[in-house]
Amino acid sequence: MKVGYIGIGIMGRPMAGNLLKAGYALSVFNRTRARCEPLRELGAGVCDTAAQLTAQSDVVFMNVTDTSDVEEILFSPLGVAEGAHKGLIVVDNSTISPHATQDFAQRLAGLGVAYLDAPVSGGDVGAQKGTLSIMVGGDKAVFDRCLPLFNVLGSKVTHVGPVGMGQTCKACNQLFCALHMLACCEGIALAGKAGLDPAVMVDVVSSGAGGSWALANLGPKIVADDMAPGFMIDLLCKDLNYTAELGENHEASMSGTALAKKLFENAQAKGLGRLGTQGLWELFK
Amino acid sequence: MKVGYIGIGIMGRPMAGNLLKAGYALSVFNRTRARCEPLRELGAGVCDTAAQLTAQSDVVFMNVTDTSDVEEILFSPLGVAEGAHKGLIVVDNSTISPHATQDFAQRLAGLGVAYLDAPVSGGDVGAQKGTLSIMVGGDKAVFDRCLPLFNVLGSKVTHVGPVGMGQTCKACNQLFCALHMLACCEGIALAGKAGLDPAVMVDVVSSGAGGSWALANLGPKIVADDMAPGFMIDLLCKDLNYTAELGENHEASMSGTALAKKLFENAQAKGLGRLGTQGLWELFK
Repeated sequence: MKVGYIGIGIMGRPMAGNLLKAGYALSVFNRTRARCEPLRELGAGVCDTAAQLTAQSDVVFMNVTDTSDVEEILFSPLGVAEGAHKGLIVVDNSTISPHATQDFAQRLAGLGVAYLDAPVSGGDVGAQKGTLSIMVGGDKAVFDRCLPLFNVLGSKVTHVGPVGMGQTCKACNQLFCALHMLACCEGIALAGKAGLDPAVMVDVVSSGAGGSWALANLGPKIVADDMAPGFMIDLLCKDLNYTAELGENHEASMSGTALAKKLFENAQAKGLGRLGTQGLWELFK
Repeated sequence: MKVGYIGIGIMGRPMAGNLLKAGYALSVFNRTRARCEPLRELGAGVCDTAAQLTAQSDVVFMNVTDTSDVEEILFSPLGVAEGAHKGLIVVDNSTISPHATQDFAQRLAGLGVAYLDAPVSGGDVGAQKGTLSIMVGGDKAVFDRCLPLFNVLGSKVTHVGPVGMGQTCKACNQLFCALHMLACCEGIALAGKAGLDPAVMVDVVSSGAGGSWALANLGPKIVADDMAPGFMIDLLCKDLNYTAELGENHEASMSGTALAKKLFENAQAKGLGRLGTQGLWELFK
């Protein structure tokens, strides 16, 4: 099985590297070609265009920032669609719009191409260690054929439904991340102002019914004033646009998410976008 | 060490029972005397007044609903203060106002009585099993003397600071519980409306960076439309008043907590107060 990986960034580079280490024949493409160099040294072929990479691959992964980036890689001149062939599988590891994902999949289906939306959770550390959570939408038989590849990239791989449901699940995941971080900031600020040692509060609350991954893992970083990412506020704000879009499309009640989104955008407007999501704390301390 | 327990309700009854089973000489008092009967059968002495119970005890526990209940037990005629003696320790397992707690402790200190605020988390099941989390404010030496008793009642016992800090920690805990439940309701409703199986979303998200105790434990109850308490909306609304009071006293930024509080109060106004906190879901489905 010949594999291609497009988008050799913070996430794509270690993920492509893990596919190489697992023994897959791998081609890579990145708009800034120099980023491919470390993978070339490990044995990957470097392609000049996404079309060229696609023509020689059975499965093409993508991992870029935004919906418009995915659209460009797929459908611009010298993009994936130009190299498409019957039986090709395209897997999108980016976090983008669920609605646009369904549109892209439909357009590619017309070329005989199968599509899986497979956004990930677990950050650059999870990408490096191959311990990502991968939420996959698309045809179950296609998912099953790609499962050996997914098992190289992640430790929790779930087929969550038809095309678009991977991105829908990720949009829900980011809703929880945003509201949990809001709770962390309000709770830690309240403890500190009321005279309770925030580190003690984080320890006690995170071990019980008030606990969350965010409180246990990012709470201590807030207490230590460590704002390094992790996962950046800029990226969470981008992702929350998809969550909000999904809520609007389906007329869901989202007042909590809307509030958290507004606060993260306030943080971004104050120049805090490149901090980890716990940087929301700067608005509370 | 002679122990008294005042307030033989859903929480107080199993907690007092565990002290009896651990071999402590126990007296109990409850305004509705019949509630003491099961403990009398296990060997507890039943007192006619809180003052009488206090006069014959070294440590007096209380577990009632509200700040006004604690004040009545302590300072009304035939209350704890009338039976108080030098060296007495009063331990409040209720969840009440942190500010009022500090006032009560100061008034009792004038009678030579030490005070620990020791609210608990873990519900009636934790009370029965002796696996509560207990957050204790007060003098450390007094805490140390009571630690063998606390270890009978709970599995995570933490001295969190001076008097009032136990209630402050519990107020923070309830902030997290409220905001996490709001996230659960918005996320599960969004998944369902967008065509993603909510049970799959709960499973995937709860195992990663979007996870919380609420999502893992109450998320599946929401999916199964099981609204039985656990912990009732009525009680969470009561507790959130203390959280809000604390926020106002210390000028903390609490927009997320305020939103969650308003939604839980809306649920209460719709007659859902005796459902478990996951009953907030009724506003979202």
